[in-house]
Amino acid sequence: MNPTDLFATRSSRMRASEIRELLKLLDQPDIISFAGGIPDPALFPKAAFAEAYAEILQGPGAGAALQYQVSEGYLPLRRWLAGEMGKLGVPCDAGNIFITSGSQQGLDYLGKLFLSPGDTALVTWPTYLGALQAFNAYEPRYDRLNPDGGNTTPAAYADAAAAAGGRVKLSYLVPDFANPSGATLSKAQREAVLDLSAELGTVVIEDAAYRALRYEGESVPPILALDCARSGGIENARTIYCGSFSKILAPGLRVGWICAPRVVVDKLVLMKQAADLHSPSINQIAIAHVAERAYDAQVSMLIESYRARRDALLGAMEAAMPAGVAWNRPEGGMFAWVTLPEGIDAAELLARSVREARVAFVPGAAFHADGSGRNTLRLSFTLADARAVNEGVPRLAALISSVLDARSAAA
Amino acid sequence: MNPTDLFATRSSRMRASEIRELLKLLDQPDIISFAGGIPDPALFPKAAFAEAYAEILQGPGAGAALQYQVSEGYLPLRRWLAGEMGKLGVPCDAGNIFITSGSQQGLDYLGKLFLSPGDTALVTWPTYLGALQAFNAYEPRYDRLNPDGGNTTPAAYADAAAAAGGRVKLSYLVPDFANPSGATLSKAQREAVLDLSAELGTVVIEDAAYRALRYEGESVPPILALDCARSGGIENARTIYCGSFSKILAPGLRVGWICAPRVVVDKLVLMKQAADLHSPSINQIAIAHVAERAYDAQVSMLIESYRARRDALLGAMEAAMPAGVAWNRPEGGMFAWVTLPEGIDAAELLARSVREARVAFVPGAAFHADGSGRNTLRLSFTLADARAVNEGVPRLAALISSVLDARSAAA
Repeated sequence: MNPTDLFATRSSRMRASEIRELLKLLDQPDIISFAGGIPDPALFPKAAFAEAYAEILQGPGAGAALQYQVSEGYLPLRRWLAGEMGKLGVPCDAGNIFITSGSQQGLDYLGKLFLSPGDTALVTWPTYLGALQAFNAYEPRYDRLNPDGGNTTPAAYADAAAAAGGRVKLSYLVPDFANPSGATLSKAQREAVLDLSAELGTVVIEDAAYRALRYEGESVPPILALDCARSGGIENARTIYCGSFSKILAPGLRVGWICAPRVVVDKLVLMKQAADLHSPSINQIAIAHVAERAYDAQVSMLIESYRARRDALLGAMEAAMPAGVAWNRPEGGMFAWVTLPEGIDAAELLARSVREARVAFVPGAAFHADGSGRNTLRLSFTLADARAVNEGVPRLAALISSVLDARSAAA
Repeated sequence: MNPTDLFATRSSRMRASEIRELLKLLDQPDIISFAGGIPDPALFPKAAFAEAYAEILQGPGAGAALQYQVSEGYLPLRRWLAGEMGKLGVPCDAGNIFITSGSQQGLDYLGKLFLSPGDTALVTWPTYLGALQAFNAYEPRYDRLNPDGGNTTPAAYADAAAAAGGRVKLSYLVPDFANPSGATLSKAQREAVLDLSAELGTVVIEDAAYRALRYEGESVPPILALDCARSGGIENARTIYCGSFSKILAPGLRVGWICAPRVVVDKLVLMKQAADLHSPSINQIAIAHVAERAYDAQVSMLIESYRARRDALLGAMEAAMPAGVAWNRPEGGMFAWVTLPEGIDAAELLARSVREARVAFVPGAAFHADGSGRNTLRLSFTLADARAVNEGVPRLAALISSVLDARSAAA
């Protein structure tokens, strides 16, 4: 991917002219970028895909792979996914699986299905910017879902939603190694989200894009698994699970899935029939081939590779960042989340960083539905090679130090 | 594709229980189907696709083909398409081309962009059912666009739209070898659509899915070409052209395009970023490979093949259909359109035809926004082999004859 494009998306609250200037700089080869939230293309299972497409197109199924398909998706892939969901504690069958063109399409469809203008969506501060963009098309209001605890009662959420002219319709969250914060919710936090949603009578959208990429610590059950256990099975669940092959196999095929009660799947199928008929047949078949043969090995390889990059990034920050700068230790995923001292604006820092330190990252404010979090930033470590870590982090740290020193001197 | 699925879509106004019964029958191998509006998979350029995917995945661009992409689409494909549009009389560049996941996605996005609940969309009677399904999500009212002439003035259209609480926002039509009617608009009819749309201040959505498949007669310029000629260039045009590779190369890759003024492309890019990020990278690159090397030869081959099937179908109807049954002679595309004597319901005929004649087709009422056209039906000839023509048509004709005879006897 062209990383400048992702960057443009995620800085959408910056001034357009400012972004254009920065984009020009980002194309320069000496810029070290921690900005793009993308997997390392060097780790894609290219040979497995080459074999899959060759087998498909030279075999008796070539015609079907190039032809129209049913809107719900390729049945063998849906069956395989139902099996995987079973391993995660979600007993279900292919009728509970709906294939999407990436999990982004799942978020768009769920927004279309549940949100009317003025309705309320509960999201974390910060949350995945792509979810806000998908939901924004349906003109919701956002309120803050705070898994760390907060004093908002279900009644207070409902009253605020009613005052805004709608109802609370959904809670959206990335419970494992979130984009952008890298944070993971405990089992108790997940149960609390289910409790709140049950009291409000809303659905929970569980975005599990990074779930398979755990580098340390113990796995926490998906919210959907906890929901099935308490509600008696997937057909009674209120949770809708959005999965993706983008971070494990490859994003360029645009294959994701939704696991949900059949009543939801049936509605999504009708929506997809009207919106794009179906996701590409050939890519679904290729993903099924590769997943059946190489999914687990690919996950293991990615975990080894990305864990090492995470550790290198965290080590470099530990060595170089000035006092007052904090960051988390993500147990998996692709992102570390940095908090600067209050009053330091990460968007302003980015403008200087690209010009002076030649380092790029994503300022955190864009991930906050209320525009807060101006002193936060996201660092992606999936593309962080030795040079990025050994040169980029110290350069960024030195810039931050100089900003803090100048502030102290002015004070 | 599973033809039963298409069938389910296109008979959506039939009772669900009735459809389920018919679907069971359609799976039986002795049913001859003229129902599915799909290309013949035996004619897909399988070898060219096998070569393209192999070259891409074994070459230095494999990583990019599997990675995220810019939302507007793969630049070399957009450049190639701009060149093709130029040959059709539409001078433009890659900035006027937006890649969609099939032209169905183009229709969905254009509905989302232009239609608010209560607005009016002008469509022909009959029109493409998929367009009605795409637009329905945005809750428009439909009024009749009648290229054969009618006495509705622009003011009458506008007044009716205002009385319904909205404005006329778009005219949608398939000017070449339409789905379902097979009809083609003359240059004068296209100019009249532009005149009407100019008076109403609306856009024209030109669905050109079948345009390349002309079997006889002289090519008529696209509406967009006529618009560019009168308005001084694409940036001043009101016409948005939706193209598709589905009928020429393969539908299973889901690659189509929109050719439009840049101001429209820019809005669609933002919409796509929020809705599914981008169409699959690898498929766009594969389509570009195959299009550059084999597009013209593929079109020529399809024209020869489908022309022969059209001629065989028309000949068989001429030989077997009873008096009172009329049909057109489509100059291209995939469909012939049959009109039964008034009072014969094609949906009821279908139910008997599947059971007794073992022949399937699509009843015409579903293609009419007002539910009229009950005595019409669509026959697709793309899959009409010798058996379909030599056995299916006589069986259907015999059934229709018996229905007409019974009616005469009862009168």
